Amino acid sequence: MSELVTIPARRGKAAFVEKGRDIRLINTHGHQIVDTWAFSRNDLHEFMSMEHCRGTLASLRPRVGHSLVTNRRRPILTLIEDTTPGVHDTLIAACDRYRYELLGCTEYHDNCTDNLASAMRELGLTAPETPCPFNIFQNTPPDPVSGEISFLPAPAGPGQYVTLRAEMDLVIAFSCCPQDIVPVNGPDGGKPTEAHFQLL
Amino acid sequence: MSELVTIPARRGKAAFVEKGRDIRLINTHGHQIVDTWAFSRNDLHEFMSMEHCRGTLASLRPRVGHSLVTNRRRPILTLIEDTTPGVHDTLIAACDRYRYELLGCTEYHDNCTDNLASAMRELGLTAPETPCPFNIFQNTPPDPVSGEISFLPAPAGPGQYVTLRAEMDLVIAFSCCPQDIVPVNGPDGGKPTEAHFQLL
Repeated sequence: MSELVTIPARRGKAAFVEKGRDIRLINTHGHQIVDTWAFSRNDLHEFMSMEHCRGTLASLRPRVGHSLVTNRRRPILTLIEDTTPGVHDTLIAACDRYRYELLGCTEYHDNCTDNLASAMRELGLTAPETPCPFNIFQNTPPDPVSGEISFLPAPAGPGQYVTLRAEMDLVIAFSCCPQDIVPVNGPDGGKPTEAHFQLL
Repeated sequence: MSELVTIPARRGKAAFVEKGRDIRLINTHGHQIVDTWAFSRNDLHEFMSMEHCRGTLASLRPRVGHSLVTNRRRPILTLIEDTTPGVHDTLIAACDRYRYELLGCTEYHDNCTDNLASAMRELGLTAPETPCPFNIFQNTPPDPVSGEISFLPAPAGPGQYVTLRAEMDLVIAFSCCPQDIVPVNGPDGGKPTEAHFQLL
C-alpha cells in the first residue's frame, strides 16, 4: 500500500496507476467534491467519458460493480467499493473560469478545469481536452419529473471513501473542487477542503 | 428562406450559419434521431457542450426558450420552436465504431461520430474532438427512481420540426443516426431515414 497522497484544497493532483491496482479516494474532512478524470497511459486521447459511461451502463449513476468506460467504450475504472451514501455525478462540466465569471467573480478563481491541466503538467503531460469529469461525492440530482438539476451539499462524511480499480495502465487526475459560491461542498455553505488518495 | 437541404439517411451534413439566422430541422419521415453539433465559426475549439448546457440550464431537458451553451458557457443556439412532443437527449454519446462492434457488427457500420467528421470535411474543416451531441428527437429517458436509461423509439412524427437560432456565427453539423440494431429510430424497429434542414 502506498502512502496517502494529498489533493490540496482547491487544487488538483494526478498519478500513474498500473492495470489491476486499486485507488482509494478519501473524503478526508467530509462533504468535499472531487472531480475525477482517467486517461489511458498509452494514448491520452483515450479517456474516461461520462457520455459513453451513461450509454454503456444505461444509467445516470455508477454503482459498485460498474465499470466506467472510455470514449472507445473500453473499461478504464471499476467502482469496487463505496462507503459513502453513493451520491456522485456524471452530468455537470468541470467548473472553469467562465463559470466563475458568470457567478460574478472579477478576479481569478481556482477551478477544476485549470486544476486538471496543472495536475497533468506536474507529470509532464497535457490532456488533449477537458472531458466531463466523474464528479465523485457531488450531489446534483435531476428532478424525477421536471428534469431540473439541483445543486445540493455533498453528503459524504469525513473519512468515507470510494475505491476504483484500474482496468488499464492509466493516468488518474483529481481536483478538490474549489466551488465556494454555490454551496455544494458541504452543509456549512461550501468550504473547500483537501482530500486524499492512496494506491492499495 | 434557403432551399431544403437533405441530410441523407445514415449520413451527416454540415453548414455555415450566420449569427441571428434560424435553422429548422425537420423530421421528414418521422421517428428519426438527428445528432446535432455546433462549433463557433471563429474558433472550432469552442463548441456546444451538453455538460455545460446541463449545468447552465440546471436541467436535463432543453425546452423552447432555452439557450444551449458552449464549453466557454456562451449561448450558441437557442431552441425557439418545437412542434414535436419535446423529447430530446443530452446524455448519450454519438454512436461510433466501438458501439457497433460491441453490438456484434463484424463489418463497418455507419456511425454518427464518423458522420460528423465527414460532414465537417465537406466544408474543409476538422472538428477538434467529438463533443457529446444534442440528440434531437432521441428518446432515452432516465428512470425517475433508479436513474436507469431506457432506449425507446423516437416519438416525433413526420414533418415535425425544431427551430434553432444561431447566437453566433457558427458551423452546424447534423447526423441522421444510422442505429438499426437498437430500435430507437422509430416504432418499426428502427429504420434510419433521411431528414432535412433549412435556413430561414
